[in-house]
Amino acid sequence: MIPYCEMTLEQLTEEKASLEKKFAQIKAQNLKLDMSRGKPSAAQLDLAMGMLDVLDATSNLKSSAGVDCRNYGVLDGIPEAQELLADMTEVPANQIIIYGNSSLNIMFDTVSRSYTHGVMGHTPWCKLDHVKFLCPVPGYDRHFAITEYFGIEMINIPMNEDGPDMDLVEQYVNNDPSVKGIWCVPKYSNPQGITYSDETVRRFARLKPAADDFRIYWDNAYGIHHLYDDKQDHLIEILMECKKEGRPDMVYKFCSTSKISFPGSGVAAMAASPANLEDIRRQMKIQTIGHDKLNQLRHVRFFKDIHGMVEHMRKHADILRPKFEAVLNVLDNELSDLQIGSWIRPRGGYFISFDALPGCAKAIVAKAKEAGLSMTGAGATYPYGKDPIDSNIRIAPSFPTPEELAIAAEIFVLSVKLVSLDKFIELRQ
Amino acid sequence: MIPYCEMTLEQLTEEKASLEKKFAQIKAQNLKLDMSRGKPSAAQLDLAMGMLDVLDATSNLKSSAGVDCRNYGVLDGIPEAQELLADMTEVPANQIIIYGNSSLNIMFDTVSRSYTHGVMGHTPWCKLDHVKFLCPVPGYDRHFAITEYFGIEMINIPMNEDGPDMDLVEQYVNNDPSVKGIWCVPKYSNPQGITYSDETVRRFARLKPAADDFRIYWDNAYGIHHLYDDKQDHLIEILMECKKEGRPDMVYKFCSTSKISFPGSGVAAMAASPANLEDIRRQMKIQTIGHDKLNQLRHVRFFKDIHGMVEHMRKHADILRPKFEAVLNVLDNELSDLQIGSWIRPRGGYFISFDALPGCAKAIVAKAKEAGLSMTGAGATYPYGKDPIDSNIRIAPSFPTPEELAIAAEIFVLSVKLVSLDKFIELRQ
Repeated sequence: MIPYCEMTLEQLTEEKASLEKKFAQIKAQNLKLDMSRGKPSAAQLDLAMGMLDVLDATSNLKSSAGVDCRNYGVLDGIPEAQELLADMTEVPANQIIIYGNSSLNIMFDTVSRSYTHGVMGHTPWCKLDHVKFLCPVPGYDRHFAITEYFGIEMINIPMNEDGPDMDLVEQYVNNDPSVKGIWCVPKYSNPQGITYSDETVRRFARLKPAADDFRIYWDNAYGIHHLYDDKQDHLIEILMECKKEGRPDMVYKFCSTSKISFPGSGVAAMAASPANLEDIRRQMKIQTIGHDKLNQLRHVRFFKDIHGMVEHMRKHADILRPKFEAVLNVLDNELSDLQIGSWIRPRGGYFISFDALPGCAKAIVAKAKEAGLSMTGAGATYPYGKDPIDSNIRIAPSFPTPEELAIAAEIFVLSVKLVSLDKFIELRQ
Repeated sequence: MIPYCEMTLEQLTEEKASLEKKFAQIKAQNLKLDMSRGKPSAAQLDLAMGMLDVLDATSNLKSSAGVDCRNYGVLDGIPEAQELLADMTEVPANQIIIYGNSSLNIMFDTVSRSYTHGVMGHTPWCKLDHVKFLCPVPGYDRHFAITEYFGIEMINIPMNEDGPDMDLVEQYVNNDPSVKGIWCVPKYSNPQGITYSDETVRRFARLKPAADDFRIYWDNAYGIHHLYDDKQDHLIEILMECKKEGRPDMVYKFCSTSKISFPGSGVAAMAASPANLEDIRRQMKIQTIGHDKLNQLRHVRFFKDIHGMVEHMRKHADILRPKFEAVLNVLDNELSDLQIGSWIRPRGGYFISFDALPGCAKAIVAKAKEAGLSMTGAGATYPYGKDPIDSNIRIAPSFPTPEELAIAAEIFVLSVKLVSLDKFIELRQ
């Protein structure tokens, strides 16, 4: 196959006619497929069913500290849950607070608290004329939705192979006091699956923010979500790195078991310096009497410790890996030669990021929809839903069955080809 | 026994000496008793242990709508949980949203959202110079803590036997546009156990607020928390009442199963008009992907329906009733004649409210502490922790065992007597 850019108008038109026929056949099947969200599949959820058996009417429901987990109280979470999630996210157990079922909720509350009450005694953001966040792109739409909701100006920072463009990050953070935060998914990033290099993390820790209330929002959502046993990315632990550089308060770290146990009924946590946690507790004690300790206990009794959790993640990987490879193989086989898109082979996480020819992403997603395939909306990986070159598409291969995935990848590739063909035909005419 | 106010100095001094001896004996036992918080006892929590058995590894975990409760999603809660909690709080199932484990958290978020984004399109409170809340007193300290946290000015409204002083409420709400809310615990109120009369509720519904974004914060925390089968209070349903009066949007209603199932692992909910719920969802969908649906399912499978819940509350009553009566009997027997305090016999809820002689509450709580009895801090039932006449004390009889309670009531009564005696002796000298 020769690249589309080298085809004559005749060749392009011929190819299009042949693919349109194929597309029409698929469309006629009235399929309903979904590669839009990073949702674990039923098979993955089945892995944690044992968690529903570890507590029953005969169980000892006291925490290791002797607290009745059924009753009110314990703002920080029970000690054994702190230990489990601290190990999971590689921080000391006294630097983590266990929350409810959603790390997104913690992040929202963190921005909200900064907006209403400020960060560690600094001016509440609602009293400031300008508050800005840096947003490595492509990134996670729900992060961007939070900052947009609070009217925070978002600035795109291009992602490189080793993480965000740190020259640009340093330039903004170290000079502009209205820059109060940066959204990071530092390991197996959403959507590219990129892990920040050692040098990138060290440059983060060496930032000298113009604003004392600048914080790195380090959403370590995929910390132990490897796809392979032998090929794994490693990420330097940011809290320790910031401490070494004399700025222990510069980072908030978020994590959860949503994609480890159950997405709707997991346990989320936030790790930070003692001073940050003290600041956070001042709000928390007004907001709640404590989170669900029985669910914390359930997680500890099921996983036992970090080793149990790592073993459990191998089972997830065994289910996810073939799905990622199925999609990647179709992309490799069908698109490699055509020069109409590029993608990254991630070693973990939940997504494959696809960059189409500029100006084609929206049309590709619409085309796929025509054949019954739902994709994440084009643009969603950018602040305000605006991809400036309309190129990035997030592929979420986790939820469909392998059989559905094979057809879904086929539809996607066809859509990419057809939209790209239109582009070239238009250029030639 | 003659009232202290009628005693001579000699009689007072004699009585004091005799009681001091008694107090010293109890103090020497180095007791550690707690009547400070409305915490269910272990025996009450044991009632719901079956809830840990209703879901296991073999269970069908689909909601009635066919949704896998383990996975992400479902912002409003699963339909069967909506139905159960709607029945519990007497509203239509499509007017309720099911949240996480804490109604306090919902109330906090509601005030926070109004502060950052305003209510249904009105100016966010953070942009206003003055925001005021009415606070019926005595009331719930955690309510007052939320409004204090957001810098909202709190205005004391005296509680009468049939609810808040509605003349005063109408005067404020109907004339002052900076009055944005009122905290209410309308049934078995915290701490007095008062239920708002039909006329009080109707006057609430007939309010004509000067501020369009005024809301009644109707914390129906003890809606089905009766102590007796035969003597039960009835409260008119406020959402319907407001709707009838043409102001369906004027009220937010909160409830939870914290004191029905498990305080740390219950299910909380908010009911409101469709327009209010739509406004709330605009925030919720940014804040979370959904609350813990497995725990919702657990509650539905355990209680089955509102009848099951009502039956369950009878078992709670059987445990709580003797405790309330134990304390009330000690108060009746020991204090009735002395004219040094008054109290209300509640028919439900979690508290007994005691009004000491003006200027005595702090000293009584301190005295009780001396003998090892923790009480809710005097003043806690008032905004800013300031009881203007230092009189009200909240008694929480639910947590101690009946044996502990007998001693605790004894210590309390002794403390009331001793502090009151000092007062009269001082007056006589």
